[in-house]
Parts: sequence; C-alpha cells; structure tokens
Amino acid sequence: MSTPLILITNDDGIYSPGLRYLIGLMNNIGKVVVVAPDGPQSAQSHAITINKPITCEKIKIDEGKQIEFICSGTPVDCVKLALAEILDRKPDICISGINHGSNASINVIYSGTVSAAIEASVHDIPSVGFSILDYSTTTEFKHTETHIINIVRNLLSSNLNVCLNVNIPKYSENKIKGIKIAKQAKGKWIEDFDERVSPMGKRYFWLTGEFIKEDESNEADQNLLDDNYISVVPVRYDLTDYSQIDDVKRLLNE
Amino acid sequence: MSTPLILITNDDGIYSPGLRYLIGLMNNIGKVVVVAPDGPQSAQSHAITINKPITCEKIKIDEGKQIEFICSGTPVDCVKLALAEILDRKPDICISGINHGSNASINVIYSGTVSAAIEASVHDIPSVGFSILDYSTTTEFKHTETHIINIVRNLLSSNLNVCLNVNIPKYSENKIKGIKIAKQAKGKWIEDFDERVSPMGKRYFWLTGEFIKEDESNEADQNLLDDNYISVVPVRYDLTDYSQIDDVKRLLNE
Repeated sequence: MSTPLILITNDDGIYSPGLRYLIGLMNNIGKVVVVAPDGPQSAQSHAITINKPITCEKIKIDEGKQIEFICSGTPVDCVKLALAEILDRKPDICISGINHGSNASINVIYSGTVSAAIEASVHDIPSVGFSILDYSTTTEFKHTETHIINIVRNLLSSNLNVCLNVNIPKYSENKIKGIKIAKQAKGKWIEDFDERVSPMGKRYFWLTGEFIKEDESNEADQNLLDDNYISVVPVRYDLTDYSQIDDVKRLLNE
Repeated sequence: MSTPLILITNDDGIYSPGLRYLIGLMNNIGKVVVVAPDGPQSAQSHAITINKPITCEKIKIDEGKQIEFICSGTPVDCVKLALAEILDRKPDICISGINHGSNASINVIYSGTVSAAIEASVHDIPSVGFSILDYSTTTEFKHTETHIINIVRNLLSSNLNVCLNVNIPKYSENKIKGIKIAKQAKGKWIEDFDERVSPMGKRYFWLTGEFIKEDESNEADQNLLDDNYISVVPVRYDLTDYSQIDDVKRLLNE
C-alpha cells in the first residue's frame, strides 16, 4: 500500500492532549490531515450545523508534519467538511480521539468522538474512535501507544469496512491484560439535575447524573474495561431493531 | 388502564405547528406534559448540554389542557429534565414531533426528534418519533390524525417496549396506502458546502447536500414513503454491529 491518508478529528477540540498525542503516533504511519473543532464539543453526538455557517481555517500548532484545519462546527461537521472541501481524495481511514473520558456502554450514543467515526463509515471509510478512561488534565497516554498503532495498522492492511469504538483503561501500575472484542454494555445514566436560581431569579439546571450498569455479560465493554482490558466494539449506523419487526407488525396489524 | 401520562417533545421548538397539532391529538388520549426546546434544535441528534446550564420554565401557550415547559436545551435534554425533575412518575409513553421534514433513511442518525424518543426508550419508556415529509410553513396535518392516534393507542394498550420512527407522506390528493413496518433505508448525504467570504475576509461554509438512496428493497422506509405508505421502523440504541464481531476478532487476532 502506498502512504495511507489518515483523517483525524475529535470532540475535545484541536488543542486537547489526546488529539495531539494521536497526531504524533499517526505521523509515523501515514499522511495526516486534521480537521478538528475549535473548542469542546463533548456530548454533541451526531449533531450537525444547519442553522448557521461554519468557519474552517488552516492552522499550524506544532512542528509535526501533519496538515491541520480548525473548525467552528461539531465533530460530524468536521468529517463532512474534510470529505467535501478539504481532502482531494477519500481517506484510507478516519481516526477520532483520543477522547478524554469513557465512551463505553450507553455513552456511545452521546459521544461526538464516536459519531465522527460513524459519519466516516457512512461514507464507506474504515474508522476508529479512541477513548481513554481518564478525565484528568495530566492524562498518561504512553501505555496506549502500541495498542493504537496495532489497531490502526491492522485495519489499514485489511479490507474490512468497519467502525470501531475502542476504549482504553487509564494508566495504572497493573499492565493492561489485552484487547477484547466486545458488545455495548446495557446501562444508562440516571440524571440528578443540580437546580439553582440566577441573580435575576430564573431557575436553571446543571446536568449531573450517575451511570447505572445493567449488564453482567463478560462480553460487555464496561465489564471488560473494569477488568483492565481494552474493549473494541464494532458499531453501525443502521438503527433498525430487526428483532422487533415481527412484534411491531402484530402491534399495528400489518 | 387509567388515564395515560403522555410526555411530548420535539426538535423544531415549542411553537412549531407540528408540535401544537400533536398536543391537540394527545389531549384526547391522556394527560399531556410537554417539555420542548425554546427554538429550533433540528439535526441536534443525541446531543446533551454539559458545558452550560439549562433553563426550563412553565409556560401557557394556548387554551389546551396540557401542561407545558419551555427548555433551553436539546430534545434529549428535554426528556432527561422531564424524567428527573418535572414528572412525578414515569410516563406511559413519550412522543416526539411532529417533525417538519423526513427522518427516514440516514436522516434518523442526525434527528433530534427521533433521538428524544430513543432517550425515552433508554429509560424503558415506549416511544414514537413522528415526522411528516413536508417542510412548508403551511403543512397540512389532517391526513395524519387517524394514523397517529391508532399507533399511539395500540402502543399504549400493548406491553411492547419499543421505540418507533414513523414517517408520514405529505398531504396530497392521493390517499395514503396504509402503514408498513420497515427497515432504515441505506443511503447518505453527499455534501456540497456553499463557500463564502465574510466582510472581514474570513472563509465560511453553509452545509448543503444531496441525499443519495442506496437501497432498492421494498422493505426500506424511503421506498415505502416514495410509494405513499407511512413507514414505521423500530429503532434501538445498542449500536453494536453483531454481524462484524467475528471479522473484528480475526482482524485483531483475539
């Protein structure tokens, strides 16, 4: 294969340490083009910008050989702009991340990071969303290096058209046990909004909540992460629940 | 069953004609509580608001017997706020819409309307997202009435825990042929951004594009709609692509 073209984006913004680390790794594998948000776009899911315009400009942030664009839109906007306006050919892979925080279990449906990877897969581009289970500002990434490179190299050398949601345990003294292919753990957030009153007397709410895991399967991503494995879940953009089609036919007397 | 509690939201905003029409229909079926965005939140997908607070206030818009709250957040925020802060018990059903415009095929992954319904289903609440294939400001809804009422009544009288993505053809002289249970049609938007330069010399882009249908199946929602049927697709929030798990195991030598 000639030098692969690698599109990188994320949802934490172009200056986030996880993205900068990922760029460094990918510069050793191929030609890297970064199109990333100008600020935090966490929990933006698959949102796109339709009611206002998007700015997107070339920018130089460090001495790396990558080419970079800073974009006012969402992560999915970044992928759409890259494909339609910036790249002169379809990238060989799209990589999103490294996200600061988990995108395991139900988090995947809120995630801008994974949605960017999903958008690439809609356009038949193999893709990976990487996340690390560490929200600190001094995240240690070194233990992720060989795993990320292996996953990307394997995907590039295959013909597999897949979108992978990869979650990596935070650094600890206990070595990661390995990689496990997983399914999205059943679970949900139970919200407990923090209600306050503004100086003008208006009620407002901060979203807070607690994650409830509802899955004991040892193939569920959350359980594998708890056991210090890296979880890899293939994800899809066809939301049809085929298992319920017959029930719904009976329900509506079709 | 005692009087059902019906939660209503949408992504076009609390004043949109589709929502107002839906409230009128649902007031005849149960006790209606509306928690809806204060303005357009189209294409917000499953986004939630985590970096700023959300306002939410009781409001009276018309003479209907529903109770209403206007919310500064996304459609999914509205559902989360309703469940955690506004309702004193779990609703029997959550209905989102009527969305002005199609949520068939790939549109479903960008849709705030359907994402609100999906969020309810995460909390084990049966739900429906209704959309009409008509973007005009003078949308005719009358032909949707019996179909919407039938779907909601059937779902309320069943034990089926399902999330339905319902798309309805726009009004025409040709009578709707009926309801078909469908799958999400394969297709995608090919973007063609409209590039402009601001008075300050800064490049900006408006998102525009063309929908490409890639599905000939007569079970695909888009094809059924083209044939003047109402399409009903059961949707799920488990994004795992189970069909690719073995391929990914081989890829990563697990």
